[in-house]
Amino acid sequence: MESPVRVGLMGLGTVGAGVYEVLEKNYEQIARRAGGPVEIAKILVRHPNKARSVAVDDGLVTTDPDELLEAEDIDIICEVIGCPGGDVEPAMGYIRRALEAGKYVVTANKDILAKHGRELLELARRCKVGLYYEAAVAGGIPIIKSIKECLAANEIETLMGIINGTTNYMLTKMAQEGAPFDAVLREAQEKGYAESDPTSDVEGHDAAYKLTILARLAFETDIRVEDVYREGITKVTPEDIAYAREFGYALKLLAIAKATGRGIEARVHPTLIPQDHPLASVNDVFNAIFIEGDAVGELMFYGRGAGKFPTASAVVADIVQAAQNIRRGVTGWIDGVAKQREVLSPLEIVSRYYIHTKVVDRPGVLAQIAQTFGDNNVSIESVIQKGKEQDPVSLVFVTHEVVERNVRAALERISMLPVVRSVANVIRVEGA
Amino acid sequence: MESPVRVGLMGLGTVGAGVYEVLEKNYEQIARRAGGPVEIAKILVRHPNKARSVAVDDGLVTTDPDELLEAEDIDIICEVIGCPGGDVEPAMGYIRRALEAGKYVVTANKDILAKHGRELLELARRCKVGLYYEAAVAGGIPIIKSIKECLAANEIETLMGIINGTTNYMLTKMAQEGAPFDAVLREAQEKGYAESDPTSDVEGHDAAYKLTILARLAFETDIRVEDVYREGITKVTPEDIAYAREFGYALKLLAIAKATGRGIEARVHPTLIPQDHPLASVNDVFNAIFIEGDAVGELMFYGRGAGKFPTASAVVADIVQAAQNIRRGVTGWIDGVAKQREVLSPLEIVSRYYIHTKVVDRPGVLAQIAQTFGDNNVSIESVIQKGKEQDPVSLVFVTHEVVERNVRAALERISMLPVVRSVANVIRVEGA
Repeated sequence: MESPVRVGLMGLGTVGAGVYEVLEKNYEQIARRAGGPVEIAKILVRHPNKARSVAVDDGLVTTDPDELLEAEDIDIICEVIGCPGGDVEPAMGYIRRALEAGKYVVTANKDILAKHGRELLELARRCKVGLYYEAAVAGGIPIIKSIKECLAANEIETLMGIINGTTNYMLTKMAQEGAPFDAVLREAQEKGYAESDPTSDVEGHDAAYKLTILARLAFETDIRVEDVYREGITKVTPEDIAYAREFGYALKLLAIAKATGRGIEARVHPTLIPQDHPLASVNDVFNAIFIEGDAVGELMFYGRGAGKFPTASAVVADIVQAAQNIRRGVTGWIDGVAKQREVLSPLEIVSRYYIHTKVVDRPGVLAQIAQTFGDNNVSIESVIQKGKEQDPVSLVFVTHEVVERNVRAALERISMLPVVRSVANVIRVEGA
Repeated sequence: MESPVRVGLMGLGTVGAGVYEVLEKNYEQIARRAGGPVEIAKILVRHPNKARSVAVDDGLVTTDPDELLEAEDIDIICEVIGCPGGDVEPAMGYIRRALEAGKYVVTANKDILAKHGRELLELARRCKVGLYYEAAVAGGIPIIKSIKECLAANEIETLMGIINGTTNYMLTKMAQEGAPFDAVLREAQEKGYAESDPTSDVEGHDAAYKLTILARLAFETDIRVEDVYREGITKVTPEDIAYAREFGYALKLLAIAKATGRGIEARVHPTLIPQDHPLASVNDVFNAIFIEGDAVGELMFYGRGAGKFPTASAVVADIVQAAQNIRRGVTGWIDGVAKQREVLSPLEIVSRYYIHTKVVDRPGVLAQIAQTFGDNNVSIESVIQKGKEQDPVSLVFVTHEVVERNVRAALERISMLPVVRSVANVIRVEGA
């Protein structure tokens, strides 16, 4: 029998407990696949005497990180502390020290990967150890390994993901029940899907972090969180979801990255997609990532993007990979930044647009607005009027593909037309 | 610069040409990911002077397999000859010789993997080389690597796949247009989706081969093609698709493998699944594999299951993996048969059933049939009558979960009832 590979587990919250339980429950199978036993040697916690969902041997638990980081017989550090309050420390420092000590690192930390991924991957390379982070994006869905290894033959052209379960749950409810944003947010909070401060989810920050990680990998280029254009779902109304449905679209918060001839587009925003697009039927808290590669064509990965065991599934797969690599003395796949491509400013994004205007119900209004779109090189694909003989009525346009700069210019003029009460909503359209 | 890894390509048909083109088009990226250049050293063809879709240097082409198999400087044999006419030779012999010569092997050959996978994987292990076959199942969808590596932490419980594009195209057409089997088969043949002899697709043989490979991997147990229960789509009617829709189901040809306490279920048959199940909206020639693992929960992989470039995407990803492993002197993940679990006979399968009977329209008929189901421990969930005051009318039942043995016994009795004209169709129901 091979001698065990020993893991230092940092964090025993929801994910940490999941990792502990999965390693225990599927011990034999994991040993088979890892080429030998995988054992937890030490667990770092903040409060040693806290009541926990898992029964852990007292001797395993410590509050001193050095007992993990300086232990010669610990091969892998598994960091699942996260960044409570948005602070990358102490997790960041632990990961850095672990790599420098020649330990392989498995982490589920999307904040750290998004903000400091490039630096840490470079450090891992210098230290000749592996750094794995499958669980940092989309929980149990094996999207990191798929992009890096399974799509190695492809130039990836487009990546579109539903990678925030909270907002997908909310938008699903809004679509199915016609309920407004505030009501579904309260419901999501009651169910524990949304935090008491929901900003990170509903404003798209969480999705932007994850997109940063995915786009960096897919396009082998350095992308910073600040490069991602971001718009949340707080302005989405049941009315717009219903109108969009009449045009044949579903509304989702998509994280989109595209490689164009002009540069990389990276953006998170509410998006209309055709109802028969595979992403359109991804509902509730489920996540999915849709990819187009030059060889493989269209691919989609669907599953649970969060939760104790789905996340643990990804963490433990990484531990198994790390254990195999340690036994063989290799570090795993190359995960590099080979190219440096420009990330386009939001004004340069090319998309189609759904534009909902509230206007005076009077002959000639459509002509005036259409004229203004035309003057700004915005070409209209279809338009419907909702409501009649009331003030205002809704006039809803869907455009052909157009660069955002032109749409903004057109909308500025349109909003000043005396017959236009307001531009109620502007939502990008993709995947048609 | 690292010295190149050299590939001997066997076969220059559709997939072979795709592999050649992808390796050429994405040469630099592939070199980066493989840790150095990947080059085609020799190509085995049957007809050296045939017109081809790719322009290949004459010096690369040979009709002599020994020029690949005995070449010391060829590291990887990529076998994409297939099994024309169902004959595993000569491909099988080439793979065996390549492994024995210490070469890594990448193959897209589902027939050989299904029939002789265990033997070849064992041979690869003894020869200390890698054998990779991502392209053998579901084309561009990275399902082999996902099961083996990404789900390493999971006990897989259920695997349900749409893994034959031809029949999925046909069933999609039947559902959308109400067209009968014969008409959509002709259309599929005209479009080149179905062969002139469509038996392998429409009778479920192709799906059974692929399921054998997937189930062996998912359950780490030896499964033979003959162990897979198989039923094709030739008896599916637009009428049944329409009735099923009224019950809330879509009809798909599913390949299903389940680990139950009593043993492994492995079966391919027309199946009703709830319309909101992720597999229900997989249409046209697309493939998808739905998996439930004890940690990850529900996962689905969606994409193109065949075609030149999707298949080449999978083959080249394997070549990149092989090249990396060769450079590191390792063979890749462990792919073994650890357990030997029994594969259940069809009579032991537990499922729900849609049962379409044609009966005399007379009071008391439903009671008689219901009584017969009850006598055989078949519990009915719902029933609808279609048609009225005609002879016969359709009486359509959906059962609760029941073991197949009981259903067969009940149907034998029911078909003998004087009021029953025929049992028109019996279709299993899953995923509810």
